[in-house]
This record gives sequence, C-alpha cells and structure tokens, in this order.
Amino acid sequence: MIRTDAGSGVRQDALTKAAGRERYSIDETPPGCLWAGALRAGVPHARIVRVDTDAARRVPGVVAVLTRADVPGTNRQGIVHKDQPVLCGERVRHCGDPVALVVAESREALAAGLGRIHTEFSPLPGVFDPAAALLPEAPLVHSDHAGGNLLAQGLMEKGDASAAFADCAAIVSGRFETPMQDHVFLEPPNGLARLRPSGVLEMIVSTQAPFRDRFEIAHALGLDPMRMRIRAPFLGGGFGGKDGATVQCLLALAALHLPGRWVKMVWSREETFLAGYKRHAAVVDIRLGADADGALRALACSMLFDAGPYAHLSAEIMALGMEHAAGPYRIPHTRIEGRCAHTNNPVGGAFRGFGVVQATFAIERALDALARRLDRDPAELRRQNALHPGELNGVGVPVESGTLGTDVAACLDAAMAHPFWTEREAWQRAAPPLTRRGVGLVATHNAMGYGRGLPDHAAAKLELTRHGGFRIYNSVPDMGQGNAAAFVTLAAQALQQPETAFECLQPDTARCLPAGSSSASRTTYTFGNALLRACRSMAEKLRARAALVLLCDDPERLRLIPGAVHDPVSDRSVPLPFLASLLPRDDRLCIDQFTMPVVQNPPDTGREFRLGFPHRFYAYGACVCGVEVDVLTGQIRLARCLETVACGRVLSLVGVEQQLHGAAAQGAGLALFENMALNAGRIGGATLSAYLIPTALDLPDLPDFACLTLDDDEPTGPMGLKGMGEIGIHGPGPALAQALEHALGMPLEAMPGGSRLPLSPEAVLAALEGISS
Amino acid sequence: MIRTDAGSGVRQDALTKAAGRERYSIDETPPGCLWAGALRAGVPHARIVRVDTDAARRVPGVVAVLTRADVPGTNRQGIVHKDQPVLCGERVRHCGDPVALVVAESREALAAGLGRIHTEFSPLPGVFDPAAALLPEAPLVHSDHAGGNLLAQGLMEKGDASAAFADCAAIVSGRFETPMQDHVFLEPPNGLARLRPSGVLEMIVSTQAPFRDRFEIAHALGLDPMRMRIRAPFLGGGFGGKDGATVQCLLALAALHLPGRWVKMVWSREETFLAGYKRHAAVVDIRLGADADGALRALACSMLFDAGPYAHLSAEIMALGMEHAAGPYRIPHTRIEGRCAHTNNPVGGAFRGFGVVQATFAIERALDALARRLDRDPAELRRQNALHPGELNGVGVPVESGTLGTDVAACLDAAMAHPFWTEREAWQRAAPPLTRRGVGLVATHNAMGYGRGLPDHAAAKLELTRHGGFRIYNSVPDMGQGNAAAFVTLAAQALQQPETAFECLQPDTARCLPAGSSSASRTTYTFGNALLRACRSMAEKLRARAALVLLCDDPERLRLIPGAVHDPVSDRSVPLPFLASLLPRDDRLCIDQFTMPVVQNPPDTGREFRLGFPHRFYAYGACVCGVEVDVLTGQIRLARCLETVACGRVLSLVGVEQQLHGAAAQGAGLALFENMALNAGRIGGATLSAYLIPTALDLPDLPDFACLTLDDDEPTGPMGLKGMGEIGIHGPGPALAQALEHALGMPLEAMPGGSRLPLSPEAVLAALEGISS
Repeated sequence: MIRTDAGSGVRQDALTKAAGRERYSIDETPPGCLWAGALRAGVPHARIVRVDTDAARRVPGVVAVLTRADVPGTNRQGIVHKDQPVLCGERVRHCGDPVALVVAESREALAAGLGRIHTEFSPLPGVFDPAAALLPEAPLVHSDHAGGNLLAQGLMEKGDASAAFADCAAIVSGRFETPMQDHVFLEPPNGLARLRPSGVLEMIVSTQAPFRDRFEIAHALGLDPMRMRIRAPFLGGGFGGKDGATVQCLLALAALHLPGRWVKMVWSREETFLAGYKRHAAVVDIRLGADADGALRALACSMLFDAGPYAHLSAEIMALGMEHAAGPYRIPHTRIEGRCAHTNNPVGGAFRGFGVVQATFAIERALDALARRLDRDPAELRRQNALHPGELNGVGVPVESGTLGTDVAACLDAAMAHPFWTEREAWQRAAPPLTRRGVGLVATHNAMGYGRGLPDHAAAKLELTRHGGFRIYNSVPDMGQGNAAAFVTLAAQALQQPETAFECLQPDTARCLPAGSSSASRTTYTFGNALLRACRSMAEKLRARAALVLLCDDPERLRLIPGAVHDPVSDRSVPLPFLASLLPRDDRLCIDQFTMPVVQNPPDTGREFRLGFPHRFYAYGACVCGVEVDVLTGQIRLARCLETVACGRVLSLVGVEQQLHGAAAQGAGLALFENMALNAGRIGGATLSAYLIPTALDLPDLPDFACLTLDDDEPTGPMGLKGMGEIGIHGPGPALAQALEHALGMPLEAMPGGSRLPLSPEAVLAALEGISS
Repeated sequence: MIRTDAGSGVRQDALTKAAGRERYSIDETPPGCLWAGALRAGVPHARIVRVDTDAARRVPGVVAVLTRADVPGTNRQGIVHKDQPVLCGERVRHCGDPVALVVAESREALAAGLGRIHTEFSPLPGVFDPAAALLPEAPLVHSDHAGGNLLAQGLMEKGDASAAFADCAAIVSGRFETPMQDHVFLEPPNGLARLRPSGVLEMIVSTQAPFRDRFEIAHALGLDPMRMRIRAPFLGGGFGGKDGATVQCLLALAALHLPGRWVKMVWSREETFLAGYKRHAAVVDIRLGADADGALRALACSMLFDAGPYAHLSAEIMALGMEHAAGPYRIPHTRIEGRCAHTNNPVGGAFRGFGVVQATFAIERALDALARRLDRDPAELRRQNALHPGELNGVGVPVESGTLGTDVAACLDAAMAHPFWTEREAWQRAAPPLTRRGVGLVATHNAMGYGRGLPDHAAAKLELTRHGGFRIYNSVPDMGQGNAAAFVTLAAQALQQPETAFECLQPDTARCLPAGSSSASRTTYTFGNALLRACRSMAEKLRARAALVLLCDDPERLRLIPGAVHDPVSDRSVPLPFLASLLPRDDRLCIDQFTMPVVQNPPDTGREFRLGFPHRFYAYGACVCGVEVDVLTGQIRLARCLETVACGRVLSLVGVEQQLHGAAAQGAGLALFENMALNAGRIGGATLSAYLIPTALDLPDLPDFACLTLDDDEPTGPMGLKGMGEIGIHGPGPALAQALEHALGMPLEAMPGGSRLPLSPEAVLAALEGISS
C-alpha cells in the first residue's frame, strides 16, 4: 500500500537555481531603470489631512511623486471585491496603507524622496479584534458599509446538529485560536513596469496570477487589460502572498506617468510585513458530540476571521475553512457558521491552507478532548470516524477516491503503523534528562481547486521547436513548488521523449495562454491536464505528419520514440528535427485547455455560497509529531515528524517530499514560533530577528522527518496526480499540540494559552510548574 | 429514398465569380513583371543537335534564354517517377517537349525571342501506338529502359477466371477503345514566380497540388522545398490537368536566374494542347461470362494505356482503371491485366475519372453485348448483378455502404423508375421526322482517395479572427468544383454560425497547412474531415473561454449560437467579437488533421500494387441517356440525361448537380465530340475550332438534364458526405453507346468504329446505310 518506488529524477530547474543562474523578477534591473516606492501610513486608522509632496519633488533624482489625485481609473484593487485603494486619498485603514508613490533615478534618491513627504493624519479610533469589531459600539473601518464591520458571514448546515447533540453520549467544546502569519517568502514582492511607445504596458512581476493581474490593474487604473504584457518568472516563494496585487498597480501607475522607462519596485522585508497580506487570525468555537462508542454524531462550529480593512479573499477563505471544519470525518449533523470582521490590522489574504489550517486545528483539538472524555486512543478515535469513499463529508458531498480507493483511513493506517507511532511509549521513556517527550497524531484533508461555480481553467500551449525539441508555455507561475518541472515530466512521459528535449517557458501573458492562479492546490492538476491534452494533439500530429514521410496510411500504428517517430512495421523512423523542418510555426503549436470538473447535484448545505462551493477533489493525510520539551526553558522542539498523504499518483517522489517538508515546517512555524506581536494594529515583530520562523536547526533531521505517499490514482488527474502543495501544512499544528499534551500529561486547555497557537515556552513552563506544584 | 430536400444555398464564391471579382492566378500581373515562355520541340522524337540562342538573346527586351545547361538539380520532374525533363538537352520525346526558356520584359519580346531560337533536330523513328510500342521491333522512347517501352504492367486476379469461363452459359468478348482527351479548362496553365531577397521562392500558380509542387520543383531544380511559398488561388478548371508540374519548374527556373523580379508564364490554348497532360487513350480487351440466368461468373480484361513518353501518373491511372474494371458488379472470378506503353504521343496524365472512364466503357459495353446474347433487358441484367454491401467487388474488397445501406442497386432502381427509362419506348416512338431515338442505362462506381499505402491526408487550420469571425485556411485548391464553399458550409454548420461569418483563404503553403492534392474525389472528404476536427477544437475552446467570462464551471453546457456563446442556464451570452478580443493570435487558431482510413486486411488480389491499392470508399451511380440521331447527317444529340448517385450526404444539392452536369458534359464530350486528330504524335486539332467540346447547345436543357441524389450517409465522411466530383463522368459514354444501339436497332460492334469513342456521325451514317440497304 505504501509507495516507495516512485521516480526521483532531478527537476529541471534544480541546476539553474543551485548555480544561481535562474533569473527571478528581482534579478531584472534594466540599465537606467527608475525605482519606485510607496510611503506607508504607519498609523492604523486615520483621516488624511495633508500629503505634502513639494519637498520630495525637489529631491535630486526624484522624477515623480504621485498621490491619489494621480490615479486614473477606480483606484480600487481586489480579486473579487474591489475595495483596496492603490493610493489612499482620504483615509488610511491600516499601517501599511500607501499614501504616496515616489519614483526616482536611484534607490538613494527614492529613499530621500520618501523621507521628505510630509503627511498629516487625524487619528481615528481603531478596532483590532474581530470579535470587538462586531460589537455595536465598535468604530467602523468603512463608515459606509451596510454591515458595519461584518464583511461576510455564512452558514453551512447538514442534518440537525442542535437536535443531534441531545442524543450524544459525550460532548466536548472549546475555543481554539490561530494567529496571523506572514508568508516570509525569500523573494519579497517586486517587479518592473514600462509603458511602451505602442501603448502596451509591459511588466515583470513576482506574482502568482499574471493573467488575472491584468484585469485587476486595468480596473484600478482604467486601462485595457489586453494592452498589457505581464511576465512571471520563477518566484522565490509565494505561498498565497503573491496571489493578488502587491506591487502591480503601484508599478503600473508609475509607468503610466513615466512612459518609455522601466520602473522597478522592491519591497523590503519590513515593508512586506507592513503591507503584505497575512494568514487570517481566527477564533474557532467548536462543540463536538459523539455516541458512547465514539462515533461522531454532531458538530457545531463558529469561525471568526480577522479580515483586516479590505475584503481581498477573506470571504473565500472563510468559506473554505468552513467547508473543511468537520475534518475528514463522518459526522451526520453539522452546523458551521463563519464570519469575517473588518479591523485595522493588516489585510488578511491567501496563505497555503486558505482557512483550512484554522479549521483543522480546531476540529483536531476537539477530537483530542473527545478522546480524553471517552478514554480513547486519539488515533483510534480518528480511525473509527475516518470518512470512506462514497460517504458524505461535513457539508454533504460524497467522498470520491481514486481508482485504488485510497482514503484518509489509509493515511491514518500508514501513520499508525509507523514506528513514530507504534513505538511512541518507548520513545517517550527514552527522553534525555530534563526533557519530556510526547507524540501526537492527527488526520487532515485539503480540497483542490476553486470549487463549484468558478471555472478552474487552464489553457496550455506546446510547441515543437524548429529544431525538433519541445517548448512548454507554462501559464501558472512556479513559486518554487516545482510545477514547471512537473509539466516537463508529464509532457516527456506523454510524448515518450527525454526531459532534456523540453524547455519550459515561464508565464508571459503575451506568449502563454490564460490560466487561473498558481494556488488552491490546482496548479499542476489543472494546467497539467490542459498540457496533457495538448501533448495528445501533438503526438497525433507528429504521427500523422511522420506518416506522410513514411508513406504510411495508418498513422495510429506509429510510435513516438526519443527524438523520432517510429514505424514498428517497417522499422523506419522520422527524426523529429526533420519533421520540425517541414512544419511552419503555426503547425508546430498545439493548444488545448481543461476545466476542472465540479460536484454535480451539489447538496443544499451551503446555499449562500454560490461561487466556490462545494469542492469535489481532496487530498488526504495524517501527521505524527514527536516533541521534546525542555523542562527548564519550556522550549518545545519538533523532534520527529511524519506526513502520510494520499494525493493521487506521485510523479516525483522528491518533489512531493519537498512540498511535505516545506509545508510541515511552515505548519510547525505557525504552531511554535511565529508571532507578529500585533499591538493596536502595529506589528511588533516586523523583522526576521523578531519574527522567528523555523530554520533547519529547528526541524528534525531527515530520518526523523519522514514522508509516506500512498498508492493513489486520481482518474481525472494528469497521469493520475492531484494537487498536494497544501495538505502537509495542516497536521503539525494540532499534532504538536496533542504531542505536547502527551509530553506534559495534561490537556493544553487546562493551561493558559494552551488553546492558542503559537504554543509558547512560557505556557509550557507555567504548566510544568502546575504539574510540579 | 430519393433525396429532394437538401439545401441549396448560394455558394460563397458564386458572387465574386459572377461579378468577375475573383482573382485567379492568371489575373495577377505585378507591375514590371517579366514574361517567360518555352520553345517546344514540335517534333515527336529527335536528337537535339543544336539550340542556338544567340539571336534570341539579342532581341530587345529579352533578358534570359535558358537551356538544359542552365538547370541546376536533377532536371527531372514527376509526381511519382521523376523522368520528365524541365528542359530537354539531348533528346525530345514528344512534340510538346521544351528545349529552351525565354524570359522577356514583354509578351511581344518574348514572342520575338522564341522566334529567334534556332534549333536543329536529328529525327528519330517514333512510336505512336501503344500496342505497336510493345512489339520487339518498336523504336525505343527511352533507350536505357530495361523494359523497353513497357512502362508498367500488373495483374489483379480474384478466383480462377480461366476455369470459370468453362462453366459459363454465355460468354461475350470485345475490344473497346477510348481516345486521348484534353481537359480544356477555361484558364490555361499559368503562374508567377519570384526569388525574394531572403532566398524564398514565391509562386502563384494555377495548380491542384501546391504543397506537393514544392517537392517536385525542389527535386528538379535542387532547391529547399521549405524555402518556397506557393499560393494557389481559385483555378479556372483543372480536372487533373493541373495535378503535376505544368509551368512550375520552368517558372522557378526563370525566377532563379532573375532574382528579385516576378516572372509570369501563361500557356496559350495551343501550347496547352501541345504540352499539357491528356487523358490516356486506352484499348480494353474484355471477355465476360455468365450463367444462363444472367448471373455474372467470370471476367477477363486486359487494359493497355498510352502513357506517352514520360511516366507521370500512368501506372497509377492504370491501377485505378484495373481496380474498377469489373464495374459495380458481383463477379466471382476476375483476371484483370494492365499495361502502359511509352509512345511519342503527348504525355498521359490525370483526368477526372483517372482510368475508370476507360474501364467503365469496356465493362458496360460488354454487359450490353451479354444482355443481347441472353435476350435480357440491359438494365435488368445490371440490376441482377449489382453489388450489395458486404459482397466482394471485382478485386475482392468487401463493399461498404453508409449507415443507410445505399448501394449501386439503389442507384439503378432510381434510374429504372425514372420516366426517362420507364417511358423510353413511347419517347422513342415520338421521335421527330428524320430522327431516331434511343435510350441507354448503365451503372457506375468511382473510388475515393489515394488508396491503401499512400496516406490520404489533410491538415486544416481554422482561425477565430480578431474581430470574432472565422477564417478557414483551405489547403486543397478549388478548381471550380466548390470545395472551398463546401468547407464554409461544413464549418458554419459545425460552429452554428452563418456562412457570412467565414472567410476561406485559398491554398498558400506559407499560411495553410499541408494536404494532398485536389484530386481523386478526396478533396472535400479529407480536408473536410480535418476541418471538422478543427471546428470541434474551436467549439470546445470557445465554450471554455466563454465559460471564464460567464463564471461557468461546466463549459460543456454552453452552446454556440450565431455570433456568440450562450449559456442556456443563465440565458447569458458572450459575443464572439468580445471573446476574440481576449485571445492572442496563437489561441485563436485551431489546427487538426485527418488521414483517410484504408482497407484493413486487404485481399491478395493485387499483390504487385503496394501503393494505392485497394480503395475502400466508393461513390455509386447510374446514368440514363436518351439520344436523337439525325438520319441525314448521322449526328448524335444527347437529348436526355439522368444521373443518379449515391455519394454520401448531400451538403449542397446545387453543388452536387453542378458537378454531375459538368461531369456528364465532359463524358458526353469524350463520347461524341472530342478528337485530338493525332497523327504520328502531332495533334491535328490543337485549337478549339478543331477540338470540339460540348457547349450548352449540345446538352439537354435542364428538365432533360436530371440528377437524383439518393439518401446516403458515409459515417467516416465530414457530416456524412463522400467525394463525388468524378462519378458523373463515367455513365454518358457507355449509356450513349447503348442508346445509339437502341436508336439504330443494331449493335455498335457491328458497325465500323462502333466500339470506339468518340462515336462519329460517319459511323452512324454507315450503319444507317447498312440498315437501309
């Protein structure tokens, strides 16, 4: 059942990246380019009294200082709801709001210009807690919003949870909180823009969605989206934080005012903390009821997300969190409420996991409480309730599985059979001096794609080059997750050619074809499917054209072999370079597209959610974490981690493991380290010396950082795969918490801050004191 | 059963042609273009002693006089076998052979230059009769050919004909001869060529095979076929006579010597008679045996074709004639021999019917003789022996029929039920004074495509224009048969758009994609199938892209409606112009290809014929001709003609009728009028005042020139159609002969020349004298 034989070829971008030859957008600095930078509000909520740019304009080297009055178009950014100003004119609603844009001949002049802008703000009362934001007396972030600070709310309901609780033999409840999180990608938001003499706006941006960016920029600045060319080279990380406008509109605005010249913008780490999107802080109230035998019966859940001042993707993230709130478990009655509240905190946005991280932490912690209540092994309780194919998930959608029937139970079985779990008591007993050890195990699920009502689409272009090689026109940016390399592998296998025969162009709206964003665990699945369809057209074309050369009237009998098309009957071949020399360019192109299939006859459980609900395809996983607690310092160390996943066919075992390792590290960071130290809308830890993320030293070494990918095959997936960039992030948070309970021998809920991430050494010390006292 | 309800829209090229706006290649005369012309041998067989070009070079306006020494490359033209010189150097083998090429600034200078070339020939004994050519003492056309004057021979054999004749109750035999025929297209061979500074050779030619022409020119002149661009506008007729090099290599040669300048060449009518390809004169010896009840049992047939001096397509034409030699009849034992002999007559080549005309005349005449012998009605005898689906044809291939089972029997039934046939005796009795009337009825079949072993392929390109219309990149020239209009109809129906939304670009090797020639009744079938596949891709693309605009996650539910993509659920539409504005050029193209399926497990009946044998798909027909014979002049008038055909689904009834009328006229011309008056290799009637073809006055008026297209549907065809440009030419020859017998009351074989086409007034008069004496 456990797959160990998958391929592990070197991915095509590995060498260029290792050698430093890969060019990211941040590496592009055309000679003579201008530099742009935004002046940020620095105050969480205020009326703008004055923005005096005169002194800044006089700084030598400063070529433009732009304010709201210089913005054509609507001045409104936003993927779904367009409410975020490009430049603020009357009011600022969080510290990162931009009030002016300076363009200068040098970075030094830019810094000097930014320093000479004189702003005068009239402070307004702020709101920094989403629950407080919903109270009647709360200051309004948008005074004209009908709903006050309530950005969105919704209900997903299956069965009759209220009534079902009455029949439950055991009921647990609790409140679980997860914090804001910064993506901390290596490459900060950056890009370049130039208005060409032809009127075409040309951009190179570190973005997850170049095709959609055009429309967002066009809306904000009143431009023609078809007169833009956006290129998206490899990203030095994205994780959702580049799914939406960062530098785009500001750069475009600068370019419009300085036609013909390249303008470059790079956010510093501090500016990224200040102005970038964040994982939503969330508060989840949960009530979970079960029969005496442990069978889950009812769930009531209420999720509250801190949206910050602008809509961005908050409603969508809330919806996905709600859809996952019941976990990968069989619960007949569920009632899941969600709300997003506006605050004057940083803007909430997409982040690997997209609401599911918050939901998973809550349901898994509730299951731990239930296991205690029922005196059950937490893993056995999960295994008992694990959803099987054909059963209805928490929002009433039948669980699908691939052709092999692999499900979350299989992930749990694999985890529970692993020595990290089977030998946990021995491992605990072998704890070094002044150390306590514990092990936790949880299950996870993560939907793939945009969900019903939103076409999850990609168009792929594949070229037979004039020299007989192949060029893939990738439409979905590679943030580092390896989709570009996966596309090479898929196409190489489909066309029976060596991977070295392929070049993979990175997204360029002028050369590649439209596709959705690089996000939602849909990147490889959706574009991969489109690409495979283009490969099938290409193979058919090559066979048909080779048949002409071979005077073969049955092209279907021909076979692609490396570098040629071969006729097994005559044992003759046509080399691809020769074939390519016969074909004009148009005829060397194959284009096809794919739209992810959606749930047919969706259940009536989420009536209000017409776009993006429900989802049909899920990856499943289980996670085992072993922690070591330093009894003197309270520090918690992730000593062991196992991720088991069912994510369709594994195309590259190395690629899957890299994603799981990265996701687990990011999940562990959320659970143990990362702390924005927000205080009245101001980030206390807006530097990497204050905002700690796990380093290699904080993570288990490889033998203790294990991955098991189960035999799985998704019939609708490209060569059977599913997206799996997100599934690995969900487990470490709740598994670490459970492990900590195991180590401490007490429920975390019993200790201050124990229901809240990150788990702090201080809370551990307090708990240990309580134990010893 | 008889279709009367098919569409009859105005074809898209009708108005431009009627208004004289359509531009044929002959209409293109770029300012300052040069004129090229060839000096023809004028002697049928000779050694070239001297070609003195000095005087010609001195003619003012003459810019080049080229001879064999100026030809780079192989100097050999030919579609299959390359043996025809571009310019003859040592020897001429027929009167039309070119010995020099003059290029001049004007047509007048060209004529003067051609007149100043002094040639000296040393005459060689010629051979002008194919049977004589095969005698041991015959002069050799090619002294180095291993087979002497035998260009090709072959045998198709099914069962044991020799033995079967012994069991026959009735055996007839005869020799039937058909003459050489000129295509007499309105637009003579012509074209233009220019060597561009880039080295690309650009041509505009009246040709049936622009894509293949590149390779023929390249071979003859040592060029790169991929560095040529050939455009083929509408042809003013082709009929096979432009399937192969006419002006191509001479023009290219001229252009190579005069880089940068356009060179134009137009053959006069006389030059076309002299140098153009001709339908092969053929002599067919046939022996046909039947049971007493009329069931055909055995056929022995020997066909001899006059190839002229070069191979061209003679062997292929012979093979197709042999494959059709048994007619559309059930004959268990056949033995069909074929031979082509070299002579010093004009070069035999493709002509509508491609060997089948000759074969059909012989088998149908033999059936008439058999009917007389058995005292059977000639139609009933044919009906009795008509092949049914599933039965084996004359070379052992099972007869296929479309989904409706329509076969040649149905064609015969329709003809035999028509008043032209049922009321023939009354019509005969109503003959005007000094006139005799008679009616004949025959059955026909004609294969479609290149046959097994030669990929019958086309690649189609379809563009959504930037304005939301559609552009078809037609790859197969339209000689007038209407395939371009058919493609518009096919695509319009497939995409549910009005025909006015389509533009059809005529073949251009730089813009359109490769396809086989416009010939072999395969043009509309093969390219049409490729185009429909491209249309399916286009429809899928349009639905998928419109779905993005409509936020519809189920593109398959969208429908194309005129000018838009429509969502029946939301009742919203996306206009095609808007959709087009979103797509870059590459994404507005759909390309696909098609290869005609071939006979699987071919019978062992034609072992020697590995390329182009056997064929799988046939059109079927029957033809009724009513003649009026002037007893004073002997003149034969085609007074009535009915063609019934089963040719798949009828897309345009008008288009089918135009093809049937044209083909019947051309068949009637061969039977009654056309006479090359060859004498020792010299054409006696090389002008349209001597070589008579039927005019409208020689053909029945429309009510008497009837067509019936049967309900038929070919499942592999584009929207069910089959090719039908050739089927109509076969019937009139034998049907006229039978009708003449009916009119005269005597077998034609009994009168001098009665077994030979054309049927002459002199022979009729002789017969009438015989009757009256």
